[in-house]
Amino acid sequence: MSKEVPVIRNVLEANDQLAEELRRELRVRKILCLNLISSPGAGKTTVLERTLTDLAGEFKMAVIEGDLQTDNDARRVAATGAQAVQVNTEGGCHLDSAQVFHALRALDLEGLDILFVENVGNLVCPAEFEVGEDYKVTLLSVTEGDDKPEKYPLIFHISAVMLLNKIDLLPYVDFDMDKASAHAARLNKDIEVFPISARSGENMEAWYGWLRHKRAEKL
Amino acid sequence: MSKEVPVIRNVLEANDQLAEELRRELRVRKILCLNLISSPGAGKTTVLERTLTDLAGEFKMAVIEGDLQTDNDARRVAATGAQAVQVNTEGGCHLDSAQVFHALRALDLEGLDILFVENVGNLVCPAEFEVGEDYKVTLLSVTEGDDKPEKYPLIFHISAVMLLNKIDLLPYVDFDMDKASAHAARLNKDIEVFPISARSGENMEAWYGWLRHKRAEKL
Repeated sequence: MSKEVPVIRNVLEANDQLAEELRRELRVRKILCLNLISSPGAGKTTVLERTLTDLAGEFKMAVIEGDLQTDNDARRVAATGAQAVQVNTEGGCHLDSAQVFHALRALDLEGLDILFVENVGNLVCPAEFEVGEDYKVTLLSVTEGDDKPEKYPLIFHISAVMLLNKIDLLPYVDFDMDKASAHAARLNKDIEVFPISARSGENMEAWYGWLRHKRAEKL
Repeated sequence: MSKEVPVIRNVLEANDQLAEELRRELRVRKILCLNLISSPGAGKTTVLERTLTDLAGEFKMAVIEGDLQTDNDARRVAATGAQAVQVNTEGGCHLDSAQVFHALRALDLEGLDILFVENVGNLVCPAEFEVGEDYKVTLLSVTEGDDKPEKYPLIFHISAVMLLNKIDLLPYVDFDMDKASAHAARLNKDIEVFPISARSGENMEAWYGWLRHKRAEKL
């Protein structure tokens, strides 16, 4: 009779097992972890800059920045006073749990309330790779078009929040907020939709309310 | 002495061999083939709609549309009168040569002048997969930010053209055209940059001039 041996079935399973370990560690420390996903240029870093600034007195926050190249984004968020660490994927199209595991070792987790993981700009591949997050938060900028939930369904299906960013540009583009929200709701009846402008600050309070609520649930 | 046997080293090599076959077939037929790449929502389909309409009397053109889901884009370009075929990648983050090979069988290639392949919206993964194209044409919309060539360098390094789209929105966003062009030029000294608005039609003639020139070179 052969002895049972552990089998790692594939790269996704190995990634998810490490993600589960990360999740356990963050749960013990009561840190809310959010995985921010969007197309390139939808405004993830700008949303973070404003959030880190506006909530600086309320929460201790840190950011893991994922990019193919450069440390531009880590420098941008570090300028708000938050801890930041940059992961360069060197061409890789998404962050994975191992990268986040190593990045966490470069952060001081003591007393941390919220950890943001800003994924590589890509609406497809990051959907497949957990990184230890409590929730996925997907940004869609109104300049990208209201058909995007329908055309990139998986990421909206598995995200807790859709931030509809750049609403300051609504007068200049053809974007139907109701259509985009209805598509997202068909993919995921529980998705929360917050129309915001990270540039002007409009309606950011709704997003902060969600953050406060989810952080409180970790305690 | 062992006989030499053919070895397919990896998935990328297999893809590139089929791309080379596609390229040979298209060369014999004198069809210019362009691989259109961008982030989701940068305007690939809108650029195609206007190009197909404006040049309808001049060239016989066809489009292979790549999307995770839906046939929205193939229907949009077919409405211009051009031939169109939709490839659904069902979650796949890029088109590959095999998909284009099959899609070509659904098109009437007789007398065709230009074949556009509109890739999945993704600035990362499509850079790695040839699909038989003569040239890669990468779109960057000005709403995405002027840092994108620096942050997604490979695709700009290997593209013949960068279409800077949505210049009608320049008054409402922070985008430095010179900075974006300079970054792209550092990655690729031969890249041609055309600032355009597919929505307003501004400066499309420069792009059409490039198309005419490259099509003439195939004859």
